[in-house]
Amino acid sequence: MWSIVILLILSILAYVVTDELIPKLKDLFIKAGLYGIDLCKSNNKKIPEAIGVVSGCIFLVTSFIFIPIAFGNGLMERELFPHNEFAELLAALLSICCMLLLGFADDVLDLKWRYKLLLPTVASLPLLVVYYVNFNSTTFVIPIPLRQWLGSSINIGLLYYVYMGMLAVFCTNAINILAGINGLEVGQSVIIALSIIIFDIIELRGDQFKAHMFSLYIMTPYLATTLALLKHNWYPSKVFVGDTFCYVSGMTFAVVGILSHFSKTVLLFFLPQVINFLYSVPQLFRIIPCPRHRLPKYNAEMDLLEPSRTLIVKKEMTIINKALVQVLTILHLIDTIEDSESITINNMTLINFTLIKLGPMSEGTLTAKLLIFQCVCTLIAFLIRYPMASYFYDT
Amino acid sequence: MWSIVILLILSILAYVVTDELIPKLKDLFIKAGLYGIDLCKSNNKKIPEAIGVVSGCIFLVTSFIFIPIAFGNGLMERELFPHNEFAELLAALLSICCMLLLGFADDVLDLKWRYKLLLPTVASLPLLVVYYVNFNSTTFVIPIPLRQWLGSSINIGLLYYVYMGMLAVFCTNAINILAGINGLEVGQSVIIALSIIIFDIIELRGDQFKAHMFSLYIMTPYLATTLALLKHNWYPSKVFVGDTFCYVSGMTFAVVGILSHFSKTVLLFFLPQVINFLYSVPQLFRIIPCPRHRLPKYNAEMDLLEPSRTLIVKKEMTIINKALVQVLTILHLIDTIEDSESITINNMTLINFTLIKLGPMSEGTLTAKLLIFQCVCTLIAFLIRYPMASYFYDT
Repeated sequence: MWSIVILLILSILAYVVTDELIPKLKDLFIKAGLYGIDLCKSNNKKIPEAIGVVSGCIFLVTSFIFIPIAFGNGLMERELFPHNEFAELLAALLSICCMLLLGFADDVLDLKWRYKLLLPTVASLPLLVVYYVNFNSTTFVIPIPLRQWLGSSINIGLLYYVYMGMLAVFCTNAINILAGINGLEVGQSVIIALSIIIFDIIELRGDQFKAHMFSLYIMTPYLATTLALLKHNWYPSKVFVGDTFCYVSGMTFAVVGILSHFSKTVLLFFLPQVINFLYSVPQLFRIIPCPRHRLPKYNAEMDLLEPSRTLIVKKEMTIINKALVQVLTILHLIDTIEDSESITINNMTLINFTLIKLGPMSEGTLTAKLLIFQCVCTLIAFLIRYPMASYFYDT
Repeated sequence: MWSIVILLILSILAYVVTDELIPKLKDLFIKAGLYGIDLCKSNNKKIPEAIGVVSGCIFLVTSFIFIPIAFGNGLMERELFPHNEFAELLAALLSICCMLLLGFADDVLDLKWRYKLLLPTVASLPLLVVYYVNFNSTTFVIPIPLRQWLGSSINIGLLYYVYMGMLAVFCTNAINILAGINGLEVGQSVIIALSIIIFDIIELRGDQFKAHMFSLYIMTPYLATTLALLKHNWYPSKVFVGDTFCYVSGMTFAVVGILSHFSKTVLLFFLPQVINFLYSVPQLFRIIPCPRHRLPKYNAEMDLLEPSRTLIVKKEMTIINKALVQVLTILHLIDTIEDSESITINNMTLINFTLIKLGPMSEGTLTAKLLIFQCVCTLIAFLIRYPMASYFYDT
């Protein structure tokens, strides 16, 4: 247990270093042309962009320093050294390091979409090999009500690896599309990380003890560096985190889910991101027109955010378009303004949905409301994971 | 042996992809502000900088794809899977990936020197842990003539890890300081890589078979992607490679030297870099004044390169300065021009040394001459390693 104490000390140090380093490096980023203008503010100040690379690097360095401590017992008796667990940690860090590189390259170079989908897949390759070698369990346990048809478990073989590869792609992009207002990307990641850590602590007494220790080894320094980032990214943001941060976070969660065998539980903690993704599908897949940016509209006069909207010309609508807009309107899922020529709907993100339901509000309040929703979803996730799971699975 | 065939096919593919990708991505780099002006040309064209990140990424991706093939036999019989060798490859790729990230961040942000020395040390940490776990041999064999005083071998313990950490720092910086003219960084790396590959092939029949296979697994895709880079970086350069390339190359050579146990042989292949480093010491450690850039001076009229010079004011010279300049002049190691007030000497790099000895020449010729010198040094290295080693060691 003394390794956990050292992990906590290292993580506190990582928090302090990240917190000190971010203001010091700000000018370097602006000088390099890595900055953006906050579209939801009336001043036109240059805000440094891609600062997620700082917290990401400190997170990696902390994990490197922790390696000899994590395997301290193994190092004493070298014959018994757990090479397989060591390879797991290395594969995890390798995948995260790759995403840090890709994310930073994306922020600097503004890469095309195909690279964004291709590279997380490649970056998860060491992870999949380590999974194959160490576990190769590709069996899904079937929920009790379905067992009369499907049997008690089903081996999906190769498909399981496709599922894990897609999990990495999903996690890295899901955080990236629930973003755009100060503190939201980092805030949601902090809550997801906390949820995973609570889950690990609950499960530490179980027979999956080692897997949850592994998860803690990764999540604790991640949480520490991310909290330091949040301090500077919270409304009003002094730094932007960039794709770098979203990619690193998504891969970190995917890595922990895959190697600690609770990827379904991790997905439960991603409930708001899943809802946001599903709600975004009509626009992401261009069934409904999608502008370049979908972040809310800033009303400078009142200093409030309003939902942003997209105009659809009626003449250009197909039957599918019309039916979809009609169904969504009836279900009160979108806010529609119609005239003889066109239909205007809100851009379909969870952020705009919150604004059409609760009315215009300040940016800080909006972030806080969305994060409260994330917390509520974590509670629901624990309800599903614990009391309800016993109806569906033998526990 | 079929794994070597697949490695060759993958490496050829990597060459083709890198070669295709570089011209396509050039504009992206210039748009992001990552470009430089070639100081040894009369046109002022923008040349994209840090293109080493492209070849580095393809090198890493190729290595990832090769993992399942390298461990193909192990994957069939999972009980016998060589977890320790797998961890070695992962640690190697992790260290290289870290240097790729650091190098790119350095090119974009222009980091301070202390980060440049700190981060390679941290990046080599996974490497050192894997070395400790898998080998932990910290013994130097003593050359025969010295054995009467020191015994047949000496165990330097912890110092061996300091040596390996410093090897990573040395390799990453040694290539970086023998640079500045078109194609030199990449050219020397190609020759070093080829030397290591030849050494591996010679040793494949020996009892260190596995270590040299490991080295080949890493060096072959490295050489392929670097050759593609050289094609675009050769005089007159259409792209610059940046610190990214020097860092990745240095770490790749250090990784192979450490994990395949021939770090001394790798250092032999670094002979020109060692000479350049030793020759640079007076300026690097500011014993003699050092300007920001020491690359040769371009004579636009004649389209030739001339040695660049540094002026030392006589009044500001200490006794050490004077003695050092005098000794170096007597040894014909520097070219001195003296007047009553000051002494002007050539900047102390191997590049300027070549120019004072052989006279002004065109950039292409200069690069070619320095690369021929690198080849001659490789021959000397093989002479030291093979016929002469038997005088010093039992073989």
